[in-house]
Amino acid sequence: MQKMNKESAEDLAADERAERENEVLDQECINTLRFLSLDMVQTAKSGHAGTPMGAADMAYVLWDRFLRHNPRNPDWANRDRFVLSQGHACALLYSLLYVTGYDLSLEELKRFRQWGSETPGHPEYGLTPGVSVTTGPLGQGFAHGVGMAIAERFLADHFNREGFNVFDHYTYGTCSDGDLQEGVTSEAASLAGTLHLGKLIYLYDDNGAQIDTTTDVTFGENVAERFRAYGWQVLGPINGTELDSISSAIRDAQIETERPSIIIVRTLIGRDAPREGMREMHSDPIPDEEVRAAKSSVGWPPEKTFYVPDIVLSHMRKAVDRGARQESEWEGMIEEYAKKYPDLGERLRRQLLGDLPRDWDKGLDDLFTSEKEPMPTREASGKILNTLVKHVHALTGGSADVGGSVKSNLSGYGDFGWHEYSGHNIHFGVREHAMGAIAGGMALHGGVIPYTATYFNFSDYMRPPMRLAALMKIRVIYLFSHDSIGLGQDGPTHQPVEQLMGLRAVPHMIVVRPSDATEAVEAWKVAMLNSKGPTVLVLSRQALPIIDRSTYASAKGLKRGGYVLWKGNKGKRIDAILLATGSEVHLALEAAKKLAEERVNVTVVSMPSWELFDKQSREYKESVLPEKIKARIAVEAGSTIGWEHYVGLDGGVVGLNRFGASGPGDIVLRKLGFTSEHIVKVTKEVIKRNKRR
Amino acid sequence: MQKMNKESAEDLAADERAERENEVLDQECINTLRFLSLDMVQTAKSGHAGTPMGAADMAYVLWDRFLRHNPRNPDWANRDRFVLSQGHACALLYSLLYVTGYDLSLEELKRFRQWGSETPGHPEYGLTPGVSVTTGPLGQGFAHGVGMAIAERFLADHFNREGFNVFDHYTYGTCSDGDLQEGVTSEAASLAGTLHLGKLIYLYDDNGAQIDTTTDVTFGENVAERFRAYGWQVLGPINGTELDSISSAIRDAQIETERPSIIIVRTLIGRDAPREGMREMHSDPIPDEEVRAAKSSVGWPPEKTFYVPDIVLSHMRKAVDRGARQESEWEGMIEEYAKKYPDLGERLRRQLLGDLPRDWDKGLDDLFTSEKEPMPTREASGKILNTLVKHVHALTGGSADVGGSVKSNLSGYGDFGWHEYSGHNIHFGVREHAMGAIAGGMALHGGVIPYTATYFNFSDYMRPPMRLAALMKIRVIYLFSHDSIGLGQDGPTHQPVEQLMGLRAVPHMIVVRPSDATEAVEAWKVAMLNSKGPTVLVLSRQALPIIDRSTYASAKGLKRGGYVLWKGNKGKRIDAILLATGSEVHLALEAAKKLAEERVNVTVVSMPSWELFDKQSREYKESVLPEKIKARIAVEAGSTIGWEHYVGLDGGVVGLNRFGASGPGDIVLRKLGFTSEHIVKVTKEVIKRNKRR
Repeated sequence: MQKMNKESAEDLAADERAERENEVLDQECINTLRFLSLDMVQTAKSGHAGTPMGAADMAYVLWDRFLRHNPRNPDWANRDRFVLSQGHACALLYSLLYVTGYDLSLEELKRFRQWGSETPGHPEYGLTPGVSVTTGPLGQGFAHGVGMAIAERFLADHFNREGFNVFDHYTYGTCSDGDLQEGVTSEAASLAGTLHLGKLIYLYDDNGAQIDTTTDVTFGENVAERFRAYGWQVLGPINGTELDSISSAIRDAQIETERPSIIIVRTLIGRDAPREGMREMHSDPIPDEEVRAAKSSVGWPPEKTFYVPDIVLSHMRKAVDRGARQESEWEGMIEEYAKKYPDLGERLRRQLLGDLPRDWDKGLDDLFTSEKEPMPTREASGKILNTLVKHVHALTGGSADVGGSVKSNLSGYGDFGWHEYSGHNIHFGVREHAMGAIAGGMALHGGVIPYTATYFNFSDYMRPPMRLAALMKIRVIYLFSHDSIGLGQDGPTHQPVEQLMGLRAVPHMIVVRPSDATEAVEAWKVAMLNSKGPTVLVLSRQALPIIDRSTYASAKGLKRGGYVLWKGNKGKRIDAILLATGSEVHLALEAAKKLAEERVNVTVVSMPSWELFDKQSREYKESVLPEKIKARIAVEAGSTIGWEHYVGLDGGVVGLNRFGASGPGDIVLRKLGFTSEHIVKVTKEVIKRNKRR
Repeated sequence: MQKMNKESAEDLAADERAERENEVLDQECINTLRFLSLDMVQTAKSGHAGTPMGAADMAYVLWDRFLRHNPRNPDWANRDRFVLSQGHACALLYSLLYVTGYDLSLEELKRFRQWGSETPGHPEYGLTPGVSVTTGPLGQGFAHGVGMAIAERFLADHFNREGFNVFDHYTYGTCSDGDLQEGVTSEAASLAGTLHLGKLIYLYDDNGAQIDTTTDVTFGENVAERFRAYGWQVLGPINGTELDSISSAIRDAQIETERPSIIIVRTLIGRDAPREGMREMHSDPIPDEEVRAAKSSVGWPPEKTFYVPDIVLSHMRKAVDRGARQESEWEGMIEEYAKKYPDLGERLRRQLLGDLPRDWDKGLDDLFTSEKEPMPTREASGKILNTLVKHVHALTGGSADVGGSVKSNLSGYGDFGWHEYSGHNIHFGVREHAMGAIAGGMALHGGVIPYTATYFNFSDYMRPPMRLAALMKIRVIYLFSHDSIGLGQDGPTHQPVEQLMGLRAVPHMIVVRPSDATEAVEAWKVAMLNSKGPTVLVLSRQALPIIDRSTYASAKGLKRGGYVLWKGNKGKRIDAILLATGSEVHLALEAAKKLAEERVNVTVVSMPSWELFDKQSREYKESVLPEKIKARIAVEAGSTIGWEHYVGLDGGVVGLNRFGASGPGDIVLRKLGFTSEHIVKVTKEVIKRNKRR
């Protein structure tokens, strides 16, 4: 608190007394947070108390003096966002949530890291009220925060009107040495600087200690200079125990509107414990006598655990009324806003709920009805996306520098940039990893439906945030084109092989590989309607015939994951079933026709999404894959491993157990066995093998 | 060429004439490289000519005036390394290889990007003589180069002696905007600066153009300041057509021995074509008239394709004799060296061949014979590693800041750092992605056997370089501990689920998940002997009983991937087969025993490595998994998808189709179905189901 000019000496003395009292209260609050965290780790006999012990001061200042949030409504749309990027320090976050009045009890703090508790070993979005993002894998929080700040700017530019700052909040976060070493942080920070995200503010817990070493051994860089190079305002270094310095740095960060800010805060890991500052303080319990020593050293009752002085609770819980008031003021404004701008108000309401407008899918079904020419599914996807965005204004996203190629650009919807935050097209640069995390952060922010786009092979760069999206069950749409060796000449460095199966193995992730433009429409519908998790759309670079749905089964079957596309000779005994996805569906059809000419009766199943198919009823599955038909052949230009899930040990797989090769796509496919002739041959072998039994 | 002091005006005139001639020759050489590249792309009707057109000058200066290499022996151990990080510009590299006399014909240049050619769409190590690393996925080349520079320093410190600079070469590379945007580059650059890798020199092709946008839209950062912050010497920006400026910058980079150097070279993408400098020049053919215009503009015969003037070839091919001489001088020195230091000489020879010493596995078999207490396989791995390094001096590696936890530290072998490059322990920092790429670069350099270590869940951060290692078939050993939900309290952000299956799907990658300390020994043997590709060792955090091999089958069965560990009641009909890996093998054994008590006869198969098992003879496989036994149950704390590969549709899988949860490991395992009781139940169901048939 800064002194103010007063006239009488008496007033000054009273001020000083009040200040001293405030200082005492501040320290009580901070110590409460620190020792709650420490007690949690000691009780669990597991966890990380070192960072809470050192970083509680900065977190306290931020939460007590700056953070606008409503503990009774953690989902308030215009709250400040808080990201704990060093998720291992979650005991500190849980302590903050408890003392500020979130729906998290002291009992839950005592059950830290126990089965079924709301206080897991790393913060989990959706599990603990007030946790805005799941963190733990380092760097992810930092980059997700950039996504939140992007969503805020995008929505502000779309919704704010004179006198109505509908979206106007900060995204704050704390991060560690480890976070700053991760490449995803570098990518996100570079983009944040380029985009002038002035409302993004990170506090860097610079404690000089990593798990294995001190930072000088492996982290010799000048972090301040690096962030200045990215276009950030760098504040500090400041002493992590000087509350007013922290306050004033945060204020400076708020004042700077053109650049994101990072405040370098020097702290001591495990401060006040006998081995403070040593990297051994990073994790795991410390001997009880050290805990007592730490508590005693600051006048904390050494034998008490989970001790929260009343004065602390009553001070910190002011956040409840303050937050309720702040949100209610905002709600009042929104009511006025909705009156003045009814359309915008309605759109706002809907976007915040994550709902789609009534006419969201208008025009989709007719998109390709008159198309006769083969078309890459990436191109179909581009047309679909550009149709969708006309009605679904929440759609925003972009590509890691291959938007023109993945066909992910929204034509006429502008580029998102510091001169025009309303643009829907985000140019992520060649930063797939940050793209994934930023999209996650946007989804978490709410109000937008984010999508990303790159080549399928480079999904490998994005796996960590894709996994988090699945774990958090948030709506992110990942577009991946160039989906197989069929991409051709770019060669094996660009040809995915194992990626399809690798992503199918991720829980809660829906993977869809459409076989033509009409299935691409249905795939996009699945993605749009899947509000409870991420969807992966896997698209071809090469042109694929558009399946004539008057002859073949409707593409609407896609929503059930797999469906019978073609039955050779209805009524006749089925000799074999061919299952295929994407471009290989056409080969399977070709093979089936050839077999039909030889009086071999084969059913072709299009199986664009395993996850959707596996969720169907037993009856439906039996109708597609009758149990008694053991002669099943899967065809997919990807790893064979896994396809036994449908074809069993009696079937066959035409797939790849090698990397691809550079050459024209059609030749590469042919050379590696993706011809109808080869499928015919394998099918006959499988039928023969099964007859012998 | 710099002018020298001469006395007579005549000499001066002659010098000037020679200089002019040299300048003309330089330009002829550069234009040859540029138009060869352009003709390759035009012929293939696919590829990237924009960068070669702009960056040929710098590449020419580097290759003509600095690079020490022997075109007739691309594997010369002490050659300078050259990394083309922007692999899409490979036409330039192939042109360089051709004109300097590598075993790559002009015909192959004409077959650019064709099936079976030696000139694939991105450079492939092992396919094209002179390609030192497979590049294409951006950022990978840059980070692999850091690995090469690390290997050079490590080996120099171990082998160099007074008067014998056995290892003394530079690692040069070129990189693009896209490379510098990728997080893996940031990670690697930060570490390279920290490690003072003064012999690492990158030329940054700063052309201001990306595929989707100009760089200002997405790359506003100050690259020079960023690299200074990492501790690099930053040279330039210089004009990419001023050869002497390029030369002098490279010389300055060589002179600086304490810091890696990056030279910022301003170029024009597609220089001299009508649309030079425009991002549209990045890839794909350009209209023929533009090609002719480009050629004409610099006096190149517009109608000629693949034109290599004799004067160019005879100048550039001098590299053959020069290289042969350089290598032969080095070989001469090595002969002397081997005489003076016979032990070192022998070790050098062996390490360069990648061979193991005769006694490489000494002590391994006895390591755990007297151990009775359960032990985590990570701990066993640590003991094995520390035993191996006593004999295998080539072993060097480290961890992404969890070496103490993965038990990957080599005790008594020092830390690799700028004050002591002989240390075997590399502290990568929290930079898993760069760690993977650096290890790949070290393997490519040769002379070392690199390993990496982190938690299994964070293998997701490393997939791109792991994939490249598999594609390149190079020996890298990846240690991953904390291999399942069994790790417990850190929760689902740290608990791998899909990673096992995801890596099994990668071609040429051997994945091994040992079930106890004795299998860990065999797993390490597999890794050490697998010189033709990467090996993944998946290790437990939690303690696992050491299987008494006097009662159960020998762990040596591991080398066949899977083996019968225990037969319930020999001679009796087998009711079911339980297959398991890692920690679940113990559960399977427990279940089998319980079943035996109920007179259900079950065989337990330990299946630590699918890849190894699938390579076995049909007979062996039949002996482990008799075809007639359909009641098979797989048990693994990971995705169930894929296990049908062994259990088919008649079997069952006890696995996970969800993420884990935070709680003590034993409780999490139990709650999610990993108990012998549950396995018994599933086994009975499977047996019953199969009897009905």
